[in-house]
Amino acid sequence: MKRNLQVCLTPKLFNLYADKKSIVVIVDVLRASSTMCIAFENGVERIIPVSKVEEALEYRNWDEDLILAAERNGKSVNGFDFGNSPQSYVNKDVKGRTLVMTTTNGTRAINIAKKDHQVVVGSFLNLQSIADWLISRDQDVIIFCAGWKDKFNLEDTLFAGALTELLVQSKLYDNSCDAAQAAESLWDIAQGDLFAFLENSSHRKRLSNLNIDSDIHFCLQINQSNKVPVLRGKALIIEN
Amino acid sequence: MKRNLQVCLTPKLFNLYADKKSIVVIVDVLRASSTMCIAFENGVERIIPVSKVEEALEYRNWDEDLILAAERNGKSVNGFDFGNSPQSYVNKDVKGRTLVMTTTNGTRAINIAKKDHQVVVGSFLNLQSIADWLISRDQDVIIFCAGWKDKFNLEDTLFAGALTELLVQSKLYDNSCDAAQAAESLWDIAQGDLFAFLENSSHRKRLSNLNIDSDIHFCLQINQSNKVPVLRGKALIIEN
Repeated sequence: MKRNLQVCLTPKLFNLYADKKSIVVIVDVLRASSTMCIAFENGVERIIPVSKVEEALEYRNWDEDLILAAERNGKSVNGFDFGNSPQSYVNKDVKGRTLVMTTTNGTRAINIAKKDHQVVVGSFLNLQSIADWLISRDQDVIIFCAGWKDKFNLEDTLFAGALTELLVQSKLYDNSCDAAQAAESLWDIAQGDLFAFLENSSHRKRLSNLNIDSDIHFCLQINQSNKVPVLRGKALIIEN
Repeated sequence: MKRNLQVCLTPKLFNLYADKKSIVVIVDVLRASSTMCIAFENGVERIIPVSKVEEALEYRNWDEDLILAAERNGKSVNGFDFGNSPQSYVNKDVKGRTLVMTTTNGTRAINIAKKDHQVVVGSFLNLQSIADWLISRDQDVIIFCAGWKDKFNLEDTLFAGALTELLVQSKLYDNSCDAAQAAESLWDIAQGDLFAFLENSSHRKRLSNLNIDSDIHFCLQINQSNKVPVLRGKALIIEN
């Protein structure tokens, strides 16, 4: 009996796929899930994803040593230590610290999924490691694209396709989900040049208008990290 | 200023795209929107799409001369004249008749969209005619995939891609919608052999289990009809 593999294209559809038993891979390529991987790579010990800006600010009252990161509509929020740029964590003194993070889409998707599911965080940066981690566990999988404000987006779908391909190649997963098949087909044609494929995508345009093309290039790099962020209680940690 | 073109991948997402001004093209390739085109091709004069089986039955009390068609979960409903097979209308004596129709996804999508939008019905069978009709009107367009019980499906997305390609080729439409770009890319790789591309799709499997592969082949034929079903009041009619 093969494991079930589903791709949920936006948070608005999650209740149609949720089954209370699958591991859920949260994907927000531009940029929350990429940023999380890089924060861990640079020594962050725990990430607490929260849905609201106010919620993140309340954590500071509780512990002054926390790092706070917030992004809304692609931009950093005033008064926070970090926004949502993965590159801002590189070579920063964040070793052993706890990061409280809220973003437009990614942290919201985590909080939707965590109610009934084991949650892990995937990005192109840790693609192979996420695939290996899933394959090593005998469980069904839902790849959950955070999208943009409940709409479908291309970049998360391409990652879903890349991960689908690796999982299906293991021959352990059934691939009868239409969204997984579509994602894998899109990945097939886009993988040669992800940046070019996303040229007209809405979020790449949104970020380009904010002059953060270099973040986009950064987030589209494959297998730069072997960290697999796993949600335990209210915090993401690295177990592998 | 180019016209706006959006693709809505499932009914669950429609409120994110609805704008009270776009023309909405309803797509339910397997099989409601294909069946509607063929019913008109064979002489049906009006189609009244209703959401519920009981609602369709009530029409019979009102007028015994109506034809009733109902499908749920891919199968015909007992007590109705027709199910959801386009081929069942071919060479039938339906000229000038009014058809009351309810299906799992297609008629529901029509009733969601009609509240605030002009509705037309698209399928591979009338692809070019729908494109020409839209191009002749100076309005924004939402291609609305009926999906399967609110989930994304491949066949409606492929049609959305085919129609997107024709509209974008006219240079009158902006194509910055991620879902439209994804649909067009999928259409590009699938168009050589739609039946093969859909081999593992959930709905093709569902219908194959009901032994209606020939309906699938029928619905994947391109440009067999020049009818453009337009909703006026509560009935679809042909204006062109």
